[in-house]
Amino acid sequence: MVTMTTHCVLDTLGVALAGMTEPVTRIVRRTLTAEHADGPARIWGSSQSAAVSVAATVNGTAAHALDFDDWAPGSGIHPSAPLLPALVAVGEEIGCSGEELITAYVAGYELQERLGMAIGPSHYARGFHTTGTVGTFGAATAVSHLLGATADQLVMALRIAATQAAGLKAMFGSMGKPLHAGRAAAAGVQAARLAMNGFLASEDSLLGPQGFVATHADELDETPLRTPFGDPWYVLETRIKEHAACFGTHAAIDAVLTLRNTPNFDPRTIEAIELDVPPICIGVCTIADPRTVLEAKFSIAFAAALALVKGTAAADQFTEKALGDPEIERLTKTVRISPDPDLAKTETQVCLRMRDGSVIRAFADSGQRGWLDDVSEQDQRIQSKFSALAGTLVSPSRAVAIAQQVAQLQHCPDIRALTRTWTPPE
Amino acid sequence: MVTMTTHCVLDTLGVALAGMTEPVTRIVRRTLTAEHADGPARIWGSSQSAAVSVAATVNGTAAHALDFDDWAPGSGIHPSAPLLPALVAVGEEIGCSGEELITAYVAGYELQERLGMAIGPSHYARGFHTTGTVGTFGAATAVSHLLGATADQLVMALRIAATQAAGLKAMFGSMGKPLHAGRAAAAGVQAARLAMNGFLASEDSLLGPQGFVATHADELDETPLRTPFGDPWYVLETRIKEHAACFGTHAAIDAVLTLRNTPNFDPRTIEAIELDVPPICIGVCTIADPRTVLEAKFSIAFAAALALVKGTAAADQFTEKALGDPEIERLTKTVRISPDPDLAKTETQVCLRMRDGSVIRAFADSGQRGWLDDVSEQDQRIQSKFSALAGTLVSPSRAVAIAQQVAQLQHCPDIRALTRTWTPPE
Repeated sequence: MVTMTTHCVLDTLGVALAGMTEPVTRIVRRTLTAEHADGPARIWGSSQSAAVSVAATVNGTAAHALDFDDWAPGSGIHPSAPLLPALVAVGEEIGCSGEELITAYVAGYELQERLGMAIGPSHYARGFHTTGTVGTFGAATAVSHLLGATADQLVMALRIAATQAAGLKAMFGSMGKPLHAGRAAAAGVQAARLAMNGFLASEDSLLGPQGFVATHADELDETPLRTPFGDPWYVLETRIKEHAACFGTHAAIDAVLTLRNTPNFDPRTIEAIELDVPPICIGVCTIADPRTVLEAKFSIAFAAALALVKGTAAADQFTEKALGDPEIERLTKTVRISPDPDLAKTETQVCLRMRDGSVIRAFADSGQRGWLDDVSEQDQRIQSKFSALAGTLVSPSRAVAIAQQVAQLQHCPDIRALTRTWTPPE
Repeated sequence: MVTMTTHCVLDTLGVALAGMTEPVTRIVRRTLTAEHADGPARIWGSSQSAAVSVAATVNGTAAHALDFDDWAPGSGIHPSAPLLPALVAVGEEIGCSGEELITAYVAGYELQERLGMAIGPSHYARGFHTTGTVGTFGAATAVSHLLGATADQLVMALRIAATQAAGLKAMFGSMGKPLHAGRAAAAGVQAARLAMNGFLASEDSLLGPQGFVATHADELDETPLRTPFGDPWYVLETRIKEHAACFGTHAAIDAVLTLRNTPNFDPRTIEAIELDVPPICIGVCTIADPRTVLEAKFSIAFAAALALVKGTAAADQFTEKALGDPEIERLTKTVRISPDPDLAKTETQVCLRMRDGSVIRAFADSGQRGWLDDVSEQDQRIQSKFSALAGTLVSPSRAVAIAQQVAQLQHCPDIRALTRTWTPPE
């Protein structure tokens, strides 16, 4: 579990460093730091420190800006983007140890995942972005744990989170989506602190007749909420993204990549692409004609075309240039998407109709990409993803040094010694 | 309209000054100022200045802490508690004039009220606190106007507000309710600033298939949204509260006060109290056995008993002492509440069963308390309410001076000259 957490920390830091230069992060950072320029918490990848709530918002936005951050298959939440920016900012303020941070992360993660699974399907179907809404509860739990809250204070923090949680799925494909993660981090910090200071919120706020669950979901599945911590540890099921787009596009990307990697395959010979997708994808990642890089990450058609032409769907491929590439544009326009209720939410069936009349099919299940059975392989993939992403802000040798330090997080007596290195080289 | 706005400013300042010493405000202030102690915006009634978002949150919480702030009869929103703390904090930062503040207030108010009326009934019935949710849109509009936003920037601010708006009615009777007003003020400021800095939010976020309206209400009445500004000016219909409790209790208080003011009336001779109330009151202000001062403000039974015993339901009457008063407690326990669908939401029918077997009835409509036809009477009532409330923090002569300055708000070249006096005497 410690290994998994350090993997999540390194992966989140990597996507956040690369996300720091995205327009959404620049705007959020400029807006918030104009007001609170000083404080104990670092804006990752910079020499600037800011108030805890500001750093949590900016770093959380950055972590989700590329939509390349980790993913929890049970709830569909991006677990670390709200949790870690909140924890690291508060941890820098109080000088916590790496072990304390890991423990608080797991506490927040496990509650967040259980709540997400308990309300998830209908909450998401109604139009809420669980990373923003349920992420507020996760961050509140994690920060409460880090601050040494009593059980009563933790309950109160969750009640406060219930009346602050927000985030609409309608924001997908716009700057609103990454902001949700940053806002969840900051709202979680505030809820935890208010509770520690004696704030009293209504006991009906979570499960009451008009509490958060009743107002934001059709039903509550109590089973996940009654599942004890450790049985299982959901954190162990975290998926680290290999493609820099909405998770709903991943199986399609995986499937077309297996076809592209066959000998003599030439994407120019494709006449049309047919994608059978799980119904949950419809309206989430089915933007037909993406006009911005953010929209492209929610276009399964564009993502499949990109992967067919470029052989990858990594973060550096989602660019204005790729949006203007004639071959990618041609293929994107040939895509026909059909919902198939028999497919699980991580599965996609691809059918390529070639110009010579032949038909090639491939199937992929992106939910199978849990790597923990081979820790060293997972380790290597995450290091390599981190180096590529962090390279936008820090030197290669600095990236290696950061990765080595994060791997030793458990033994770090004060995380400020760690975050001090999360800056560009002098 | 200028007169009405200055009345709202003075009334909001008065309830906020008195609300500043409430536990909820103390906790919010301590929590937020610990992080951002310095900035351009004053914490009202103190010599402390803080970051704009902090002052907006603290002053907004204070303004709604007593539930004694103004009320908009069309939407049921407390209009000024989110609007004015946001505007004054930003206005202090940029040094705006009184005229600019008044104009921005009216712009925010009119949009807020129209949106509140458009989604109001089903939004409220679902369990959302419109002052928190719709107040975020109002504050975003007002601040955008004050900052000189373009029409596109204003639209963008509303889209950002759509994905930040939050607040559960389940919080009524707890510290969560006043926090909603403060949070709406701060979220509105942030939405306006992000939009001015180029943030791009999805165009579906407000009225799209899974936008704010679709996710937070059953239906949208477009009529109020299409009603031009000025036809009418809803700000002119604002109600200034005379009783320091949920508006749903006001008609009951008004009705019992007419009975109490009859000659030789003695509350000790009452055997039982029957209240026929509009159905909307049920579950909102019908706490049967209030245990805290905040719960007492949402107990129509307690409020009626208090008014019968004390002859008033002003802010200084809702105390721990009143909660322990045996005669008030006796009368509270005799109250029987029945919903009557024929009553408008501002009406209540009271029936007192006396120990001698006689029965006395009274009816009141609290919606009739619009005073603008007699400006000087309204002026006098507001001044007198302000003096009583402000007296908790400033001297009587200071209170008079503040009231005189606020009355001249329209001619104030820089509102910092005004807010400078909103402090305790040296």
